[in-house]
Amino acid sequence: MSTAQALQRHLDGRWSGVRATVRALSERELFRPESGLPTVAHRARTLLQLRSLADAGLTQMGFDERYGGQGDLGASITAFDMLGMGDLSLLVKTGVQFGLFGGAVAHLGTERHHREYLSDIANGRLLGCFAMTEHGHGSDVAGLQTTATFDRATDEFVICTPTDDARKDYIGNAADDGRVAVVFAQLITGGIPHGVHAFLVPLRDEAGAVIPGVRIADSGLKAGLNGVDNGQLWFDGARIPRDNLLDRYGQVLANGSYRTPIEDDTKRFFTMLGTLIQGRISVAGASVSATKVALTLAGRYAQRRTQFTAPGHDQEIVVMDYLSHQRKLLPPLARTYALHFAQGELVEMLHEVLGARALASGDAVIGDDPRRRQLETRAAGIKAMATWHATNTIQVCREACGGAGYLASNRLADLKADTDVFTTFEGDNTVLLQLVAKELLTAYGKRIKGLGLAATVRFGARQTLHTALDRTPLRDMPARLAARSATAFDDRDWQLAMLAFREQRQVEALAWRMRRADGAAATGDPAGAVNAVQDQLLSTARAHVDHVLLQAFVAGIASCPDAAAAAALSQLCDLFALSTIEADRAWYLERGRLSAARSRQLAGAVNDLCGVLRPQLGELLDAFGIPPAMLDVPMLREQEG
Amino acid sequence: MSTAQALQRHLDGRWSGVRATVRALSERELFRPESGLPTVAHRARTLLQLRSLADAGLTQMGFDERYGGQGDLGASITAFDMLGMGDLSLLVKTGVQFGLFGGAVAHLGTERHHREYLSDIANGRLLGCFAMTEHGHGSDVAGLQTTATFDRATDEFVICTPTDDARKDYIGNAADDGRVAVVFAQLITGGIPHGVHAFLVPLRDEAGAVIPGVRIADSGLKAGLNGVDNGQLWFDGARIPRDNLLDRYGQVLANGSYRTPIEDDTKRFFTMLGTLIQGRISVAGASVSATKVALTLAGRYAQRRTQFTAPGHDQEIVVMDYLSHQRKLLPPLARTYALHFAQGELVEMLHEVLGARALASGDAVIGDDPRRRQLETRAAGIKAMATWHATNTIQVCREACGGAGYLASNRLADLKADTDVFTTFEGDNTVLLQLVAKELLTAYGKRIKGLGLAATVRFGARQTLHTALDRTPLRDMPARLAARSATAFDDRDWQLAMLAFREQRQVEALAWRMRRADGAAATGDPAGAVNAVQDQLLSTARAHVDHVLLQAFVAGIASCPDAAAAAALSQLCDLFALSTIEADRAWYLERGRLSAARSRQLAGAVNDLCGVLRPQLGELLDAFGIPPAMLDVPMLREQEG
Repeated sequence: MSTAQALQRHLDGRWSGVRATVRALSERELFRPESGLPTVAHRARTLLQLRSLADAGLTQMGFDERYGGQGDLGASITAFDMLGMGDLSLLVKTGVQFGLFGGAVAHLGTERHHREYLSDIANGRLLGCFAMTEHGHGSDVAGLQTTATFDRATDEFVICTPTDDARKDYIGNAADDGRVAVVFAQLITGGIPHGVHAFLVPLRDEAGAVIPGVRIADSGLKAGLNGVDNGQLWFDGARIPRDNLLDRYGQVLANGSYRTPIEDDTKRFFTMLGTLIQGRISVAGASVSATKVALTLAGRYAQRRTQFTAPGHDQEIVVMDYLSHQRKLLPPLARTYALHFAQGELVEMLHEVLGARALASGDAVIGDDPRRRQLETRAAGIKAMATWHATNTIQVCREACGGAGYLASNRLADLKADTDVFTTFEGDNTVLLQLVAKELLTAYGKRIKGLGLAATVRFGARQTLHTALDRTPLRDMPARLAARSATAFDDRDWQLAMLAFREQRQVEALAWRMRRADGAAATGDPAGAVNAVQDQLLSTARAHVDHVLLQAFVAGIASCPDAAAAAALSQLCDLFALSTIEADRAWYLERGRLSAARSRQLAGAVNDLCGVLRPQLGELLDAFGIPPAMLDVPMLREQEG
Repeated sequence: MSTAQALQRHLDGRWSGVRATVRALSERELFRPESGLPTVAHRARTLLQLRSLADAGLTQMGFDERYGGQGDLGASITAFDMLGMGDLSLLVKTGVQFGLFGGAVAHLGTERHHREYLSDIANGRLLGCFAMTEHGHGSDVAGLQTTATFDRATDEFVICTPTDDARKDYIGNAADDGRVAVVFAQLITGGIPHGVHAFLVPLRDEAGAVIPGVRIADSGLKAGLNGVDNGQLWFDGARIPRDNLLDRYGQVLANGSYRTPIEDDTKRFFTMLGTLIQGRISVAGASVSATKVALTLAGRYAQRRTQFTAPGHDQEIVVMDYLSHQRKLLPPLARTYALHFAQGELVEMLHEVLGARALASGDAVIGDDPRRRQLETRAAGIKAMATWHATNTIQVCREACGGAGYLASNRLADLKADTDVFTTFEGDNTVLLQLVAKELLTAYGKRIKGLGLAATVRFGARQTLHTALDRTPLRDMPARLAARSATAFDDRDWQLAMLAFREQRQVEALAWRMRRADGAAATGDPAGAVNAVQDQLLSTARAHVDHVLLQAFVAGIASCPDAAAAAALSQLCDLFALSTIEADRAWYLERGRLSAARSRQLAGAVNDLCGVLRPQLGELLDAFGIPPAMLDVPMLREQEG
């Protein structure tokens, strides 16, 4: 087995069978990426692809066995991940249908909804929408304005869009195909509002005609993803039976009284938003996959493309041999591997915490379960960092291919345009990172409180965070760091300690500033005080995710059974760690954790690693196991000729 | 006069009349940006727009008065700059026709070419191509493979594409409209190659039929700019009269002998490449304009869009009031202003050095004229930094508008896709920055040599560079810097000294490493030695351009006659300087030019400036004077309702 094969086997991981199935399917003509289709044709093709996925049994896996599924959420997310290598319109339409719409019915509905709908949803016979976002309220879901008012006389809910600002916006499957929508609206019964709940609202009849009380408009042309029929929805008093409330976390009885298993409004709200976790994890995985494709296209091109002749040589230089080109592509490649391993862990966590078994047992579903909170935080952080990484890296890859990268036929244009929205949908990245930072603060606060002030002072506040969040024991870290200021850059413990230290210190500094902000809150400007630390919230969250990524990379090396593959991964991990520290070296310098001399050596160390990894680039790209059809583009075909 | 009006008058500058004309034209229905046109319709509309520009007299200004022009190159570039606010396909097609094609005939041709062609070119009656780039050779123009072999028997040149790799690629105006092309090819006469020269080669007859010996293919769909008909050209022994050699810098006599006014091959080659300078400056200007539009769209949206309610408040918070949002949009706005002023200076330099008067007098045309070299270096540097700034900023603007930013109708999608290629055409940015750094080294080397070693040691090598390149006297800079380590961040001299110091030190360090590389060259691996400093070349060039930008900003403030406008500019300049220093603070920390404490204060200073500038955002955007039709998008219209 070649190193590339060993690497691929390791990367393929637990759900390698599903990966193989999607790879085989990807070679079919129907799934070959095609650029420049007119919207109508693109949508039709995407729908055909979706049905074909369902026929191949790839869309049911995550659902309960009782409804034709396999109860294997991890397999389902892995299949979705693989779709990230093809036309991303199919990925997104699949995500809307099976992940968001199907997921909402599964997670927020109860048995009667499951019995009635899940099998048809999983097989793609009943297409639907996830109508959460409103024009005026995207990130602020609690502020949604659509109302669902219970009418006791008819035992129905009346769904209303009170203002144009409250129209449901950018809703996938809405413009053409959705027959029903899960609509998030403020539940009102007996004049009393009970917060946001989800309702099954029919949009179209069997013949496809829009149902009275519903208005639908097409969102029109988008930057990308034009195979997805996004639309806008208005409800003018549409009436639905009481049963159409997805009532796992809130029931309305015939007499109009409201019941809930989660009394705390906020807790209930966030529990219901849990549907979004799976969506975020899916988008993160798809981003990593699209990034792999872009890097493979640009990397293979650069391995063959020549430009300029070196003095004293006859042959033109292969572009990939230029340091500037290595600097463009190799650190992002290293980070992509880090994200792959972190994403793998995340999918396993999701599978355990929110998979069919956990759901069936009612275990770990309530919003304040610590494993669920950890999953939620990690999903938010990795989603934000993976999608930004995709945006940045695909851009770099486009530029690295020059004019060829700009031609639609070479795929980079579509990859870029399609993934662009990932940074702001399924949770805006800026908002998500703030959630991550706030969760880190909460965890830190709990530890401090648990220890008591005296103990905190005695043991040092520094240690407390990591026992809560991390698996690396870092009790002696500051001392080790100091002692190791002269160690080699490839010392893994030093790399880990550096990223751990950064996260830890940032959380402490943030806690300190937030305490000052609390003081300011008492004096009358709480919003201003929190606003003033926003940039620190973001950098703290980034530091946390970087640390998570390095830990995942290290675990990925440790579990690799092939020695040669592990060795290659280890060098790539060095590049990830050092380029990350290099990018943040100002922070370390400011805190005396890097000397000026050592900081200046970092660039050289990164350059050296680029040189070391350059000969292994082909294997590191082959290991992604991208279906050949997804890489069958003119700029690579020509070079082979 | 409001501050916004005073600012606009100042920004409009020397060629404000042309700006007003283009603004008026932009309100015509024909020029309104339209997204999602099919390629055929988009190309037809772009051609119509181009002809309409010519009818309005906006395309002739840069040409000689004898051929219907006004000999006003600056006016011509300014008009082009304004087109950067509209559909960029028109901009690029205009640039190809009048700048590249027309510019090549004007600069590389002689009077008979001018008499025969320039008037028709300037009026858009004769459409043509600039056929330089080959599939296998983009950046490496000297390596072009197309041949133009003189056939003495027929007094013709025979144009050949020897391999498919030598086909002319991504050539604007080639797929549909070009009747003739300026083809860059290796001139061979009597079996002797004389390097790359330019030839006028007919492509299509009057009826539009492709001429025998020429093959043309369509480049197909691109990421953007689909209103431009890019194509590929092959020449299978196409024959052209000897007169069709654009022979300003190289003539072939009837007997086949070759003559040139510039004996040195390299010098002649670079002189002929001078046509590219104007193209680079034009692209830089267009990038700045497109960035202004994106910032205005995102800024106005964020001034009205609300999200989340602050604790203790009834009203939702305006998105622009979030620090994280200010951090996204305001530092890029400051840099856009800096680029505007630097671009203004560049256009004036171009106008003086390569304008009609200079060309007519034969002055400053030869490649080694120092003013021309400075122009070339500055054009390369600003083009690279302005186009990357556009790519980054438009991306940030898209994300800042969330889903609305992703809808094609709101323009950001097209601005992003259209400007994307700017970073790699008209000179790949990475290659251009290396040219800049090499030129800085050459200037440094000359100064060192001029002074002699003893003097260098006596006066300090440090001072030498700046007398050559800069207008700010910095002889006492290191001392001042040291003395001022405690000065306020808004001390302009300190800001200037910081950026000057960075550039200076980087050049020195580079010179030192290059000397070591020369040593390595002697030992047998010159290419490897130069390759090893590539990252340093790039960062040195960036440091140079940042310094140029700050100097231009400072000059722009000094020349502003309105006190309120100047005050606003001054704060914006602070933001530009401090956010630039903040981004590079690791470098300053490593060299002891920022203390850790002071470095950590920078973030707060930048945040404070964001808060100070927030209320002025509206005026700072209005001052760009963007035609209302270019901002007439749904996401802004709705909010007004």
